[in-house]
Amino acid sequence: MYMAKVVGSVVSTQKDRSLVGRKLMIVQPVNSDGQSVRHEEVAADSVGAGIGEYVLLVRGAGARRATSEDISKDVNDCSIVGIIDRFDK
Amino acid sequence: MYMAKVVGSVVSTQKDRSLVGRKLMIVQPVNSDGQSVRHEEVAADSVGAGIGEYVLLVRGAGARRATSEDISKDVNDCSIVGIIDRFDK
Amino acid sequence: MYMAKVVGSVVSTQKDRSLVGRKLMIVQPVNSDGQSVRHEEVAADSVGAGIGEYVLLVRGAGARRATSEDISKDVNDCSIVGIIDRFDK
Amino acid sequence: MYMAKVVGSVVSTQKDRSLVGRKLMIVQPVNSDGQSVRHEEVAADSVGAGIGEYVLLVRGAGARRATSEDISKDVNDCSIVGIIDRFDK
Amino acid sequence: MYMAKVVGSVVSTQKDRSLVGRKLMIVQPVNSDGQSVRHEEVAADSVGAGIGEYVLLVRGAGARRATSEDISKDVNDCSIVGIIDRFDK
Repeated sequence: MYMAKVVGSVVSTQKDRSLVGRKLMIVQPVNSDGQSVRHEEVAADSVGAGIGEYVLLVRGAGARRATSEDISKDVNDCSIVGIIDRFDK
Repeated sequence: MYMAKVVGSVVSTQKDRSLVGRKLMIVQPVNSDGQSVRHEEVAADSVGAGIGEYVLLVRGAGARRATSEDISKDVNDCSIVGIIDRFDK
Repeated sequence: MYMAKVVGSVVSTQKDRSLVGRKLMIVQPVNSDGQSVRHEEVAADSVGAGIGEYVLLVRGAGARRATSEDISKDVNDCSIVGIIDRFDK
Repeated sequence: MYMAKVVGSVVSTQKDRSLVGRKLMIVQPVNSDGQSVRHEEVAADSVGAGIGEYVLLVRGAGARRATSEDISKDVNDCSIVGIIDRFDK
Repeated sequence: MYMAKVVGSVVSTQKDRSLVGRKLMIVQPVNSDGQSVRHEEVAADSVGAGIGEYVLLVRGAGARRATSEDISKDVNDCSIVGIIDRFDK
């Protein structure tokens, strides 16, 4: 899993049926000091995360389990699966 | 998922049967400011994206769900699954 | 598999059901000299690793096999699967 | 999918049964200008690609679909699935 | 697949059941000139590779096919699947 900060969302009218009605958030991966690492990605939101919040991301098959009733038709490969309250170090 | 810009296409005569008849687009991953990140990839197009458009990419098993009727014989591992109208930030 | 050092944990109240009750550790990938490489990730712990310990990480489907009774509903994609006693070189 | 240039092959006598009799090509990922990006990989060839040719690579489960009759015993995770005639930009 | 050099092994007493009795080798990815690229990983050995040898690595589901009788309980995600005799270029 990866830590990321929600920085916006993507508006897409023409898209795969399995993505219709989903919130597609722009997320910036971060480390536990809140510093940006690597590059932005787009994640389907399943926990109601808002702009500016730190979240947990999963990729691949796990991402489909978070957001989909019918995994066999879901193209999604990245989901927000938790809102991070704090980093304990 | 990743944001990318469509920059061209690949012409390939000799290829796996599952790729015949598909549009194989050259895509440059970008961030939400439209800046290039990482390196170009090749994605099968399932939404009719044109050169210069910003798109959503998925990789791996999700990519096969976007473009294939018979997933069990599909070699594809990257698909364009949406056209990005705009980035909301 | 990857070598990593456990550096903390993530506190998340609102998260996918499959992550409830799990220890979500912040791990810093390292090489066999203990030097940090790449960036921090978050891994579900299945072996009782503590802060400061070196551990083995797996990603993807293998990670769900380490920590889950019901893989079909598990969103996790990274698990601690061993505590490293020492590096033999 | 990735673009790559075939630069050589690997000779391996002692290897997994599923790799016996396969051509294991050394491939250098490139962009659509033919410039090297990232690092060399090894790909099983299923289309008869020769040294110096530009090719399409797939990774993961898709790679096994390209080269294997019995996917359940195949360890391969990278295949050449097309020869690139040209880049249209 | 990736080329790598075996540089050592990891000693781990407390680990997932599926890893017990396996040789867990520290491998440094290399290019076909033998130069180190990226960072060390840990791979389960299925071909009897020794320290200093060049090997072929596979990741993900393919890795489990190389080393496991019961894939459904195997957490491993990286295996040595061949010893490289030489690079032909």
